Order: sequence, then C-alpha cells, then structure tokens
Amino acid sequence: MAKLPGLGPRSARRAVLHLIKKRDILLSPLADSLFTVAQTARECVTCGNIGTMDQCDVCADPRRAIGQICVVEDVSDLWAMERAAVFKGRYHVLGGVLSALDGVGPEELRIPNLVSRVGDENITEVILALNATVDGQTTAHYIADQLEDMGVSVTSLAQGVPIGGELDYLDDGTITAALNARKAV
Amino acid sequence: MAKLPGLGPRSARRAVLHLIKKRDILLSPLADSLFTVAQTARECVTCGNIGTMDQCDVCADPRRAIGQICVVEDVSDLWAMERAAVFKGRYHVLGGVLSALDGVGPEELRIPNLVSRVGDENITEVILALNATVDGQTTAHYIADQLEDMGVSVTSLAQGVPIGGELDYLDDGTITAALNARKAV
Repeated sequence: MAKLPGLGPRSARRAVLHLIKKRDILLSPLADSLFTVAQTARECVTCGNIGTMDQCDVCADPRRAIGQICVVEDVSDLWAMERAAVFKGRYHVLGGVLSALDGVGPEELRIPNLVSRVGDENITEVILALNATVDGQTTAHYIADQLEDMGVSVTSLAQGVPIGGELDYLDDGTITAALNARKAV
Repeated sequence: MAKLPGLGPRSARRAVLHLIKKRDILLSPLADSLFTVAQTARECVTCGNIGTMDQCDVCADPRRAIGQICVVEDVSDLWAMERAAVFKGRYHVLGGVLSALDGVGPEELRIPNLVSRVGDENITEVILALNATVDGQTTAHYIADQLEDMGVSVTSLAQGVPIGGELDYLDDGTITAALNARKAV
C-alpha cells in the first residue's frame, strides 16, 4: 500500500488499519473492484486510452469521428480534456514524452501509430495538447515534423495567461508568451 | 505595523521588537527611507506609475516612445511586465478595474487620460494587459469600445496554458480557452 503515489509508510498503515476495521463494508468491495479492474482494464488498441473493451468508449462513439485527433501525453491529460468537455473528437495517448535523458524515443511512445492513424482515418486536424514543459514542446515539434507532408493541419493549444490569472503572480516566461501571442480585441 | 498587508498582530509585534533591538542598523535607516519616500514618491502625471519626478522613468525614456501603450491594472502589474523585460513601449496604469459592485466607473480609473493620450501621442497599438478575471475582462472590453474609432490597433494578452503548465492541473476554463485559441504549429 505504501508504494502508491501520495501514500507514505505512515498513511499506508492508517489506510490499511481503516480497511481492516471496516472489512465488510470497505475491504471486500474494494478487493472485488480491484480484481475486476485487474481482469478487464486494457489499453484501447486505437488510441491508448484505458477502457474495458479493445476499443475505448471515445473511439467506439461514432459521434466523435469528426476528423480531429487530440494528442495527449497521458491518460490523466485525456481525463482533464474530458472534464473540460470542450473537445468533441477522438484522442491519441502517447504514453509519455520524448526524453533523451530517460532514453525515450519515438518507438517507445505511440507516435508511429499516430502517423498511421492520420493516414488511415479521415483526419483533417491533429491538435497537440501536450504539456507546456520542455519535453512536451520537444515532442510536439517532433510530431509536427512527422506529420508535415501528410496534408493534415497540425495545431497546438494556445499559451498565455490562464483564466483567472493575475499578472503579478505569473512567471516571466508566461508573460513573454502572452505578450508575443497577443491578439486583436 | 499590523495594518500592513500580510502582517497580523503577532508578526507585527515580532517585527517591531526586531526593529527596536536593532535600532541603529535597522530602525533609523528604515525611518529615514520611509520619510524620503513619503516626501518624494508621486504618481507619474502621464501614466500613473510611481516615481520621484512628475514623469516616471519609463515615460521619460525617449527609447520607449515606440508607439505602443501597455494598459495595466496596477503598479504591481507594471512591475511584473518590467520583470519579464519583454515590453519595450510605455505603460498606462488604470489604478483599478471597472466594478459595478464597488461603484468604480471609468472616471475613477484613468480611462479618459488613456483616450486623450492615444489622441495626443503617436500611438499605433494599445495592448490591454489586464488580469484574466471577470472585472479585468469587462474593463478590457470597455476600453476597446472607447478606442474603437481612433484608428489604433487594440490587442490583448493571449490566454491559454501557462509556460510549464500541465493539463492535469489546469482548470476547465483555461483548457477551453487554450483549445479554442489553438494555433498552427
């Protein structure tokens, strides 16, 4: 239990003791659920999202075949996009970002799959929703290069002031990006 | 001392005691500095920035007369822009934002001054660097309306993912804004 992210040895002990005390109403159902998830959870063969079937719910939904693919780093980012409920197309989960330091190359990620999806499916736009970190942006440029001659429009999320953001609390990089990308009112 | 922002009664007592203990090396110089600032600090007649002369350092610098005015809410925002060292023009400090609730109208702010500056000085672009809050954006729209027929281009800071930002930690509004303002790679 202590190996879970966010749980140290002490909180793991507390959690385990709590589970044992409430073994009927908490421990058994949790064990059942974990067993079920271990049996059924699998990666979507198309996009890499997690689901219970070969194709995830998003890929299987015919209403989302609108020719847009949103490329995200991880399933947690896909969930963040879904929480915002603003994107109506399908996703492609890379499973990480390129990193020379950690020895992660294009083959370790799901980049070749992405390129073949763009060729096979009727895709008009690839939206790179990668994190605004150095590795994320490197990966974005690599993918943009790969897709350059495929006749598909490649876009990325806007960078700038977050909603509710106050200038005084922003870092210099964000202010610079927001000023450089300023747009007519 | 306890009336200063960020200082409660307890930390004010600690600070005062510290000052009294070090009265030679800390209290007297601080008292002198505060006295000097009280005597000399004044608002720039042009932009509202704080300086020691009628015109602040930014307005007095001829190299910054490049026809761009950056409109900010407060002097702290002007300092944030200067820290980023990316804007080379002059500023206009509103001194607040429009707020029906607090009874702040255009006359309480420095909006009429801004309009007359745009007419008088050789201004080509007004950049609205207001906070991405509701009041800030209301004020931005009001100013854009006021400047509509003056032949000046009105722009605002880009909204989107802040630099270093990870999707998983962003709010829905920012993800929506970033997706809607996405741009070609």
